[in-house]
Amino acid sequence: MSRSINLAVIPGDGIGQEVVAEGLKVLSAVLPQDVKLETKDYDFGARRYHATGETLTDADLDALKQHDAILLGAIGDPGVPSGVLERGFLLKLRFAFDHHVNLRPSKLLPGVATPLAGQPEIDFVVVREGTEGPYTGNGGTIRKGTEHEVATEVSVNTAFGVERVVRDAFARAQARPRKKLTLVHKNNVLTFAGHLWTNIFDKVAAEYPDVTTDYIHVDAATIYLVTDPGRFDVIVTDNLFGDIITDLAAAVSGGIGVAASGNINPSREFPSMFEPVHGSAPDIAGQGKADPTATVLSVALLLRHLGHDAEAARIEDAVSADLADRGGLPARSTSQIGDALAARVAG
Amino acid sequence: MSRSINLAVIPGDGIGQEVVAEGLKVLSAVLPQDVKLETKDYDFGARRYHATGETLTDADLDALKQHDAILLGAIGDPGVPSGVLERGFLLKLRFAFDHHVNLRPSKLLPGVATPLAGQPEIDFVVVREGTEGPYTGNGGTIRKGTEHEVATEVSVNTAFGVERVVRDAFARAQARPRKKLTLVHKNNVLTFAGHLWTNIFDKVAAEYPDVTTDYIHVDAATIYLVTDPGRFDVIVTDNLFGDIITDLAAAVSGGIGVAASGNINPSREFPSMFEPVHGSAPDIAGQGKADPTATVLSVALLLRHLGHDAEAARIEDAVSADLADRGGLPARSTSQIGDALAARVAG
Ligand SMILES: CC(C)[C@H](C(=O)O)[C@@H](O)C(=O)O
Ligand SMILES: CC(C)[C@H](C(=O)O)[C@@H](O)C(=O)O
Repeated sequence: MSRSINLAVIPGDGIGQEVVAEGLKVLSAVLPQDVKLETKDYDFGARRYHATGETLTDADLDALKQHDAILLGAIGDPGVPSGVLERGFLLKLRFAFDHHVNLRPSKLLPGVATPLAGQPEIDFVVVREGTEGPYTGNGGTIRKGTEHEVATEVSVNTAFGVERVVRDAFARAQARPRKKLTLVHKNNVLTFAGHLWTNIFDKVAAEYPDVTTDYIHVDAATIYLVTDPGRFDVIVTDNLFGDIITDLAAAVSGGIGVAASGNINPSREFPSMFEPVHGSAPDIAGQGKADPTATVLSVALLLRHLGHDAEAARIEDAVSADLADRGGLPARSTSQIGDALAARVAG
Repeated sequence: MSRSINLAVIPGDGIGQEVVAEGLKVLSAVLPQDVKLETKDYDFGARRYHATGETLTDADLDALKQHDAILLGAIGDPGVPSGVLERGFLLKLRFAFDHHVNLRPSKLLPGVATPLAGQPEIDFVVVREGTEGPYTGNGGTIRKGTEHEVATEVSVNTAFGVERVVRDAFARAQARPRKKLTLVHKNNVLTFAGHLWTNIFDKVAAEYPDVTTDYIHVDAATIYLVTDPGRFDVIVTDNLFGDIITDLAAAVSGGIGVAASGNINPSREFPSMFEPVHGSAPDIAGQGKADPTATVLSVALLLRHLGHDAEAARIEDAVSADLADRGGLPARSTSQIGDALAARVAG
């Protein structure tokens, strides 16, 4: 546990600005007096791209490297062509800082609405691989724009990359009461990658006899996520499958307004990055309507990553209590929710 | 409209046998006297694989080619390694017969349970590409079983392959009352394939000014499928995304017990194949518990493909009426449901 936190803050675009302000408010409120918090803002995202054409330079990466962690709001703007900021900023950062554990908890908290009938119990964590699979940018296009165009996307999977994320997931499963780990893949069709994932999963499973394991195809996993989400405890999966099922997981467990994520480098060779699963939501930006809860829960993940477990738990408890009360409260603005959470964690 | 139907029947494994029998029962009952139905059974699947090691030979393909269409129950058995029957039979057939339109309607019928709260209106069709994308089997493995293993999966997308399925989807959207088509992809990350899909979609859209279009990332599409499924009319998407979202679509619109599909070759150069979305369900096989409705609805898709629209509609109406009544009825066996549907379509 560090006695100081040197945080890089990337508010980004749209509602990113608003939600990050509340995240920092709660972070300041929860930290004990003797933990020194230093923050530095970085103006990355659409505004900078429009002004300079830059997304993330080597100098930017060097600057970010100096921090203990990164808090990000959201990046994205309809005025920027699809893919430019995603590949040029978000994915570039995940790859440069080797964020191979993309951690996305889903917990349906009391009082929170879900689109599912019967308010099922939901409490699982997805460990999504963050540096391989179809996200590597391998592939290409020939004869672009002609009737003979061929475009490929190459999913790259290495024993090194798969084993480290599978090990991380087993350790997380073992630390939870139910000790259950599900591998989600599509090994009946993507047989090359599927066999690599399945073999490594089975090999590591032998070292964790107390962890119950199972395997589900990604298509079937989407069925279980809506018909029986309680069956999941920890899920480990590839980058693209993880992207898809965590949005669905967020939807069934209270919506992306409360879905947090961490892009984690467990070795701490580079700073990890914490961000809400939601995007920049330009349609509601600047109106104080955005729910900062997902960002606040991402701050809790950040604190846990840095060893401040008690403070992380205080934030999570505050969020639970706040959400439980919401049904009875009139709608509040972004900063009113932040104020309420800050007051709760401060004690 | 043909005055004779020469049908290849592949009951397959597990509950495939039971549900196909009911599908044929309803087919016989619905056809007018003057349409001659000939069927020939093919014993493909796990049993044959265990006995001979064969999945689908060139001679098998030549035999199947002689038919007007194929009705399939389900293929798969836990005793066969994952991928063997999928790649060696199901996908081999889709590729050999160029089934590039994988058609999967989702309609929540009155009286049918859904895991979603509030019984939303759901009535859309997914047009899933069936011969390209990550399903081509391109890719490979080096240093298998070592700590330096690398496994790749190559998604192959061609202008030819994308344009023909996009055109099919636009035509289907135009023929429906709402005339709305949504492209589902992940063009912000899979930028090579994503741009090919997006450009062709936009190009063809210009020829269909009366069709409303939009684009949604696959991850966000899973959110809408549970929070606002009514927004979809026709969806066109790649092979893997289509696999994933159609299982979710089936789950929210009544479950895989009622989800039908067609693997269609619109040019009719080769026979199209119709099958329930569900698998062989070995856990309930042989007990008369399987719901044959998905197979019966697949028979309706088959009839429509062969130009027997009135008979297809009669089957769909019978299924709607049967499902609407189920709440009040005691549970029935596979053949009791088949009998009830046959009686309804006959008269
Ligand atoms: C914006 C995009 C690059 C990103 C992803 O696909 O990983 C997002 O969907 C997410 O899940 O964090
Ligand atoms: C069994 C498998 C090969 C198949 C697929 O992935 O297409 C199935 O999931 C489906 O959706 O028809």
